[in-house]
Amino acid sequence: MGEFKPINWQVVAREAEARCGLLQTRRAVIETPVFMPVGTLGTVKGTRFETLEDELDARIILANTYHLYLRPGTEVIRACGGLHRFIGWRRALLTDSGGFQVWSLGALRRITEEGVEFRSHIDGSPCFLSPEIATEAQVFFGAEIIMAFDECPPGEVSRDEARQSLELTSRWAARSRQRFLELQSADVDTGRVNDHLPPTLDGTQAQFGIVQGATYLDLRRESLRRTVEIGFDGYALGGLSVGEEKAAMYEVLAETAPLMPSDKPRYLMGVGTPEDLLHAVACGVDMFDCVLPTRTGRNGLAWTSRGRLNVKNARWTRDRRPLDEACACSVCRRYTRAYLRHLYLAGEMLASILLTHHNLFFFLDTMRRVRQSIRSGRFSRFRQEFLEGFRSGVD
Amino acid sequence: MGEFKPINWQVVAREAEARCGLLQTRRAVIETPVFMPVGTLGTVKGTRFETLEDELDARIILANTYHLYLRPGTEVIRACGGLHRFIGWRRALLTDSGGFQVWSLGALRRITEEGVEFRSHIDGSPCFLSPEIATEAQVFFGAEIIMAFDECPPGEVSRDEARQSLELTSRWAARSRQRFLELQSADVDTGRVNDHLPPTLDGTQAQFGIVQGATYLDLRRESLRRTVEIGFDGYALGGLSVGEEKAAMYEVLAETAPLMPSDKPRYLMGVGTPEDLLHAVACGVDMFDCVLPTRTGRNGLAWTSRGRLNVKNARWTRDRRPLDEACACSVCRRYTRAYLRHLYLAGEMLASILLTHHNLFFFLDTMRRVRQSIRSGRFSRFRQEFLEGFRSGVD
Repeated sequence: MGEFKPINWQVVAREAEARCGLLQTRRAVIETPVFMPVGTLGTVKGTRFETLEDELDARIILANTYHLYLRPGTEVIRACGGLHRFIGWRRALLTDSGGFQVWSLGALRRITEEGVEFRSHIDGSPCFLSPEIATEAQVFFGAEIIMAFDECPPGEVSRDEARQSLELTSRWAARSRQRFLELQSADVDTGRVNDHLPPTLDGTQAQFGIVQGATYLDLRRESLRRTVEIGFDGYALGGLSVGEEKAAMYEVLAETAPLMPSDKPRYLMGVGTPEDLLHAVACGVDMFDCVLPTRTGRNGLAWTSRGRLNVKNARWTRDRRPLDEACACSVCRRYTRAYLRHLYLAGEMLASILLTHHNLFFFLDTMRRVRQSIRSGRFSRFRQEFLEGFRSGVD
Repeated sequence: MGEFKPINWQVVAREAEARCGLLQTRRAVIETPVFMPVGTLGTVKGTRFETLEDELDARIILANTYHLYLRPGTEVIRACGGLHRFIGWRRALLTDSGGFQVWSLGALRRITEEGVEFRSHIDGSPCFLSPEIATEAQVFFGAEIIMAFDECPPGEVSRDEARQSLELTSRWAARSRQRFLELQSADVDTGRVNDHLPPTLDGTQAQFGIVQGATYLDLRRESLRRTVEIGFDGYALGGLSVGEEKAAMYEVLAETAPLMPSDKPRYLMGVGTPEDLLHAVACGVDMFDCVLPTRTGRNGLAWTSRGRLNVKNARWTRDRRPLDEACACSVCRRYTRAYLRHLYLAGEMLASILLTHHNLFFFLDTMRRVRQSIRSGRFSRFRQEFLEGFRSGVD
């Protein structure tokens, strides 16, 4: 298998720490910084893949190993030809490892050196995930990028607990990597061949390691060093936006991201608001995923160039303006605040569909503008102007 | 206003009683027999209007006066420029009158000569609809085709009750017509101008009368005669598929539809299955609406050329075939039974979106094939072959 490269990665522009990159995978060429919509159960909720491709031009989406492992299960996805063929998505996929999800089960899980015993949130049945099992599941799913299995401490953890967690994560990272390399040689990855499009790269899967260490900067540096020693195709910052103060997260980003290997993609997991994304890009992060645009959309919240708009608000009852007068998305071209409010109050599915679409457009379009501003050397100014508009409030 | 025609209607082909027509409205040219998707609250549930236009090519949809009258209310829709502009639909609209909906409230309504007192199903507040009020609401909504306000007896009603109901419906029809004509002269119809497309006809609104009489053939004939005497732009059969035996409905159709004026469109309200549609077309009906494709889609049922497919069935767990191998819709081109089953069991919105799309495609495509078969004089054979396939069962 030595002739196959997992990914090609190239930085094409820089401004201070911020960088613009080209991430080539076997299914899509991805310009970074990139926002990855979240498709937990193999669907970006409320959105057809046709729309993600044709209108929103998402190149890569995320799916959750924990959820898919429980339902429909690894065996079903494998029998259906891997995750791409099972769900009908033709571009790149990233799967997380399930580490964060089993952590968020709280009292329902027990962590040992071997792995995590937990009870399914669906039917309470006993389950087990380990670095090896999580890696095997991800190989059978066949995503372009898969993640090492990590232990995620809460935001407000003590230094001692953070260190212990970091060391467990390091040992699990080594085991994840070993199993990954064995399986890449065994030719069981379901994602290799693409029925629909010629591959953009004759690649194997890529595997990213995860840096932990809570908000302790020295532990973050140590975790980074140990993860890089194992050697991955990219590196992620985990355990942020999990309850810590925003200032603490921003400090970790500013101090850690620039130390991550410059010749590999840097991925900030599960973050965040447009403000968070711009801060992280300024620190040199390349990749993001977050449920924010989709989840808040289903709850009646629109993200606009002037901040958040609550669609339920009575002031929109007769308002014939689009959600965002500066937005070029197909929702803003056709639908009014008055109609969206009506749909939301009536409990109509179309409210979720349209708000999700608009929000994904806003996040993806903001990242397009970020990339363009870095390429033309005006990211710092773009960021300032964007934040001024974003904080000005919806009129 | 005398220079404006409400609609143009032309029969372009016949086969026995079945007919193919061209219905020209100010917003869309509609080939008949036509199936109208139902958009109760101003949305065809789970479907964007872009999809209805571009992919499904629906030319006319239905909206419910009762629901829109309660929420968001006539005044809001009027303030937003009428129903087309409020919801963002650019083609033809038909609004029902609310008569059937208040009838289905059962114990919550009281019928007098003047109209119907009822309690809102949303908050229990007291409301009132009359021929005049229902007509005014529909004029303010601005649909291309609006309906007279009728009283709908249950399917298993006695002959005496059916006669009384028929007579009330006749008096209400005359009042509906009178108020309609007054309002068309008063220039309050919001639907006249089309911002997006040149009008296909410089029309006023059209108003259809409704024939009642339960399953009593002589009462149906009498109701028809009295409705035609008042004079409408088209005629509808109401009060079918409301609890009576299917054979009784088929008999009413066979005996009544051919007697309806041949030079006006004939509309069968709230019906039905593909089998019902083919039977009614054979009797000379031109227009249909029904919630069946959308509602059953949300409940996990797909309509296919081989009958109904229950997407929940465990036999689809690893089935990589589309819902219908004979179907050309975008759902069948991309998504498998295994994936749709997974989405449905996981409670994902995408299950409803995709099943609704497929079902609407199936109903609209079946009607396209019906029209083509009438034009080429082979409808009778088409019907037989269609029903053989439809009854053969999904393999």
